[in-house]
Amino acid sequence: MSQSQSKLLSKKRAIILGAAGYSGAELVQLISQHPAIELVAAYASAGRKPEAFASLYPRYSNQLDLQVLPWQPEAINEIAQQADIAFLALPHEASEALAPQLLAKGLVVFDLSGAFRLKNAALYPEFYGCPHQHPELLPQAPYGLAEWISASELEQSLFAVAGCYPTASALALLPLIKAGLLADGAVPVINAISGVSGAGRKASLGTSFCEVGLSAYGFFGHRHRPEIEQTLGCSVVFTPHLGNFKRGILATISVCLKAGISKAEVDAAYQQYYQHKPMVRLLPRSPNVADVAGTCFCDLHWQQHGQQLVVVSAIDNLLKGAAAQAVQLANLKFGYPETTGLLAGGYRD
Amino acid sequence: MSQSQSKLLSKKRAIILGAAGYSGAELVQLISQHPAIELVAAYASAGRKPEAFASLYPRYSNQLDLQVLPWQPEAINEIAQQADIAFLALPHEASEALAPQLLAKGLVVFDLSGAFRLKNAALYPEFYGCPHQHPELLPQAPYGLAEWISASELEQSLFAVAGCYPTASALALLPLIKAGLLADGAVPVINAISGVSGAGRKASLGTSFCEVGLSAYGFFGHRHRPEIEQTLGCSVVFTPHLGNFKRGILATISVCLKAGISKAEVDAAYQQYYQHKPMVRLLPRSPNVADVAGTCFCDLHWQQHGQQLVVVSAIDNLLKGAAAQAVQLANLKFGYPETTGLLAGGYRD
Amino acid sequence: MSQSQSKLLSKKRAIILGAAGYSGAELVQLISQHPAIELVAAYASAGRKPEAFASLYPRYSNQLDLQVLPWQPEAINEIAQQADIAFLALPHEASEALAPQLLAKGLVVFDLSGAFRLKNAALYPEFYGCPHQHPELLPQAPYGLAEWISASELEQSLFAVAGCYPTASALALLPLIKAGLLADGAVPVINAISGVSGAGRKASLGTSFCEVGLSAYGFFGHRHRPEIEQTLGCSVVFTPHLGNFKRGILATISVCLKAGISKAEVDAAYQQYYQHKPMVRLLPRSPNVADVAGTCFCDLHWQQHGQQLVVVSAIDNLLKGAAAQAVQLANLKFGYPETTGLLAGGYRD
Amino acid sequence: MSQSQSKLLSKKRAIILGAAGYSGAELVQLISQHPAIELVAAYASAGRKPEAFASLYPRYSNQLDLQVLPWQPEAINEIAQQADIAFLALPHEASEALAPQLLAKGLVVFDLSGAFRLKNAALYPEFYGCPHQHPELLPQAPYGLAEWISASELEQSLFAVAGCYPTASALALLPLIKAGLLADGAVPVINAISGVSGAGRKASLGTSFCEVGLSAYGFFGHRHRPEIEQTLGCSVVFTPHLGNFKRGILATISVCLKAGISKAEVDAAYQQYYQHKPMVRLLPRSPNVADVAGTCFCDLHWQQHGQQLVVVSAIDNLLKGAAAQAVQLANLKFGYPETTGLLAGGYRD
Repeated sequence: MSQSQSKLLSKKRAIILGAAGYSGAELVQLISQHPAIELVAAYASAGRKPEAFASLYPRYSNQLDLQVLPWQPEAINEIAQQADIAFLALPHEASEALAPQLLAKGLVVFDLSGAFRLKNAALYPEFYGCPHQHPELLPQAPYGLAEWISASELEQSLFAVAGCYPTASALALLPLIKAGLLADGAVPVINAISGVSGAGRKASLGTSFCEVGLSAYGFFGHRHRPEIEQTLGCSVVFTPHLGNFKRGILATISVCLKAGISKAEVDAAYQQYYQHKPMVRLLPRSPNVADVAGTCFCDLHWQQHGQQLVVVSAIDNLLKGAAAQAVQLANLKFGYPETTGLLAGGYRD
Repeated sequence: MSQSQSKLLSKKRAIILGAAGYSGAELVQLISQHPAIELVAAYASAGRKPEAFASLYPRYSNQLDLQVLPWQPEAINEIAQQADIAFLALPHEASEALAPQLLAKGLVVFDLSGAFRLKNAALYPEFYGCPHQHPELLPQAPYGLAEWISASELEQSLFAVAGCYPTASALALLPLIKAGLLADGAVPVINAISGVSGAGRKASLGTSFCEVGLSAYGFFGHRHRPEIEQTLGCSVVFTPHLGNFKRGILATISVCLKAGISKAEVDAAYQQYYQHKPMVRLLPRSPNVADVAGTCFCDLHWQQHGQQLVVVSAIDNLLKGAAAQAVQLANLKFGYPETTGLLAGGYRD
Repeated sequence: MSQSQSKLLSKKRAIILGAAGYSGAELVQLISQHPAIELVAAYASAGRKPEAFASLYPRYSNQLDLQVLPWQPEAINEIAQQADIAFLALPHEASEALAPQLLAKGLVVFDLSGAFRLKNAALYPEFYGCPHQHPELLPQAPYGLAEWISASELEQSLFAVAGCYPTASALALLPLIKAGLLADGAVPVINAISGVSGAGRKASLGTSFCEVGLSAYGFFGHRHRPEIEQTLGCSVVFTPHLGNFKRGILATISVCLKAGISKAEVDAAYQQYYQHKPMVRLLPRSPNVADVAGTCFCDLHWQQHGQQLVVVSAIDNLLKGAAAQAVQLANLKFGYPETTGLLAGGYRD
Repeated sequence: MSQSQSKLLSKKRAIILGAAGYSGAELVQLISQHPAIELVAAYASAGRKPEAFASLYPRYSNQLDLQVLPWQPEAINEIAQQADIAFLALPHEASEALAPQLLAKGLVVFDLSGAFRLKNAALYPEFYGCPHQHPELLPQAPYGLAEWISASELEQSLFAVAGCYPTASALALLPLIKAGLLADGAVPVINAISGVSGAGRKASLGTSFCEVGLSAYGFFGHRHRPEIEQTLGCSVVFTPHLGNFKRGILATISVCLKAGISKAEVDAAYQQYYQHKPMVRLLPRSPNVADVAGTCFCDLHWQQHGQQLVVVSAIDNLLKGAAAQAVQLANLKFGYPETTGLLAGGYRD
């Protein structure tokens, strides 16, 4: 979108909550450069002192002149009046509590946590540790996987932005499932490796520099498993891993096709669903985490051997797996071209 | 084994061919410290000049006073007379040609390449690029997976030391298969990530520091796939990956069990086969590549969810996946305690 | 600079030579996004086949639709007619030979090699291995350190873009020298650590993933030493190091001040020279390579203890140390705002 | 030393305090393999529960069967009776308080903290934050730089094991100083880069995986500066850095020689002091952190240009810079060969 085109659309004003964390900081950076959405304020926890964003993230010195303010629950009326959009990069409990308040003030809310992703409220106690505070909101919070959201879902006001592993996984599998290519009862096996930023910015022994290696975790019990299964409509074996890199997810997915499915049919399924989706790249070579880190793309590649299909999917966990997908959804919601603010610059590793 | 015990057994003399490569250098280090096997000479390619081992690998300065000599094909008689054992860390073509000559001189040969691993000679053109030069040797070259080799196989003189990915994979799966726990027709899905040393020491763009990220390669066509399938007796989906670390392999394996198999049955299978195997560690926690790098162990951990089982296996690709396994086989062959020379010291990451 | 402002200035057309290397690829990326300079063609070595830029650098798939063409020496007339500017990211021998030809066709040449940096032609045999082919060009090729180039130098047509280590070093030291703060005869001690991309994209054992650690090299004999000394007008002790990261240089510089120089005087010197220089950031904290990697900034920080001053300087070796500095010089040369095309987006590590 | 020789010397029994930290864990590993020193117990903080060492450090599973016990201040009498030696890998405040108690029970104490390193008690408030609790012990606690400790110092019972940066720095500079080669008033400039393990095992934002890059810290104020200056007898400019690797220190040191000092004189000084010191390696090439990580060596290399000399020194910060040096001192103290327990095995990076 050119600058002039974007001016034809009404500009929106946004606030970001949780701006001190890794995903929140990406939101700050993306919205600051967005030609149609103005960043009016960025907030961190209520207890903190105001702090320059460039002090939290020195990379942005002399680039982003912004104060990260303490959230003020008592000032929610005034805060809400400044903005049309709220991006929430908060712990799920905080999002559960806050989203309804912001919705009530008329804001459109893009929530990056898992608070509104699962449509079966009964799963929250098992996977999120306590009952949902507002189960009545779950049906009206569309699942925010940008390439698959529908026009009617975009009319809603609360968006449950898809999780990082589910984004990588579902973008790889949905075309096959929608095209009916999977064998009956096929259980996709998803092995995914995330960079350490996926664990957030809080210091912990497990994410200390000297402790990180490469290992699996969360066997069968990770909260992204029910999210993936809900999106796909089938069971999966999902094994996440923590790797020794900062950003990115590589998901390698093995699945059994129906007998007789040809390579051309598989190719056609991906083409059908993604040929007009600018943030998905269908690659003739194996994706590399280093090539998506810092970008807003999802890279896909697949190879077939008889009925066996292996699909590899790579994203930046903080961008296409979090902040950039939220912006992409906002672009769709407000009628901006889908890639607005998501292509410029880019990381060079 | 104490020093005094080892002296009761006859000492053996060994030569190492391919000592300039990563696996060969590990052999040099292990044999130099082995109390019962004497390193009499280490060779590199015929064309090279003699070079101090510590010049090739400065880490060993003041520790290993050894010249790496150019191989002299014309002096094979004299060379063979010096030694009882030859460890070959050579390209498979070189091993194919040289192993029969060394066997003919009465040496016991431990070959670290793929030259003698596949028992179906017809697979060599497809997976190794040309017909086997000595298919008659294949039946008499036991597959060298140390925990699973039999007493009668140990009477042979040519050992096809198992590959790195196959070692990690087969150690994880064989107990389940031998115990009859896999569902009929189950196709294990093996996702494995190797450190860059697995690609050898030759400079190439793909293993240059700035180019390495995390990516899958060799979909369905990697030469370790038929090796794994031969060992397991079933088909697998095997997807290797290259990761941004120097040493180690993490293999995450998903497989479907027969209905009704309990956790206790799975545990019992691993206990049965490995409780007396000192180089396999059955862990209550998820293995980490950083914890096996520099060690000669294979770490295993598994978790079950209904019929789905995920097993994680971690080794050092150059040690348990190459040099240490060769030494372990030599220990077994010559009646030394299995761990001789394989426990001392160790890497600290 | 806003889009509309840039349109007031005449647009320029540029070609890039050496587009397959790391610095050349950065030039491609920067010029592709530059609002006032149009990239008309990118060339690699004469022998190569045309290749998509995104095939050479998959990160740019779906972003940069560009063919990298083989250089055609015989077509230099036609090539030169397409362009106003040539950026050369070539080996110095190639630049020496080619720059005069391009100048003769009327192009403005920004050369990223060392071919025209040293003004004393007698130094070329010692530091670059052979006599200079065109010493007559040296006096008319201003040294391209963007913050220090003069208006009259900008009238020239051949620019010797400063080297990476010299950029980091000279930006840190020139304010002190120009302000007369160094003790008489002071010999600055410059220790600098570069990421591996500084060695270029050619595969070599020394830059293989498994071989890189942290070590010094080029003691006293590195070709950037005379370049630094020429720029500063004094001798230095310069020790470069290779570190285990992809991009960036950290230079830590110790120097002795005149007796009695106060902290305020040092601060004032940096303020005086850089307060209006947007690509230099004077930081209240110690710079981190991770915070400049992927940016076009030079970060500076200093601390004083009596007469001893330590200055730390951090840049991205491929950007402020190469491609971005060339673009910055082009901006200055052609009257575009200095930061044009150099602030958007950015790497997030 | 052969096993048989070591048996001729009386065996000693040791306890380790602070066994849960990185340096303490190295002590556990080294003493466990030491043929003449028996590890009788390993302690962590008083508050903790007993925990298997292999649970704290899974790398040692099946290798080191040891419980790390909570320290019991009230049981110091019984604890002291079990042992001849105490290795303290504690915060300096804890060492200050505990060392006198252990000395009073007749133990020989090797303290790895800074508690007893500075002989001028007046420096403790400035550099360690509070007055020394037992200044009377400072004169009788020899500075534990193993290559330079004297026979008479070895008769003491409390050893202040040298710090990591000071070990790398002083080993490089002392031969030059003792040989009288430095220019009058020369101020060595020491730039040193440490791996992250130097910061200890406590989780903190600064040592989180995603936050580590390469940066200088502690300008002029690091507590190792007075320690280095005390050992050398001259002022230094010391700038420590944190790098993105786990283990090791590389110190690059620039110093001005007296006029007319020849390369032969410099070489002779290093030979004189280190030719019989097995843990110092004088290398003809530039040391690499990767080649000393996991070893107990200090690697030195130097190059001269006129009066300027650059010396590079590399150690493993946790071994020669902490635990291995303590063991080396114990070897010297008790008459074991200096390298006992320090050469076996070794890390392979």
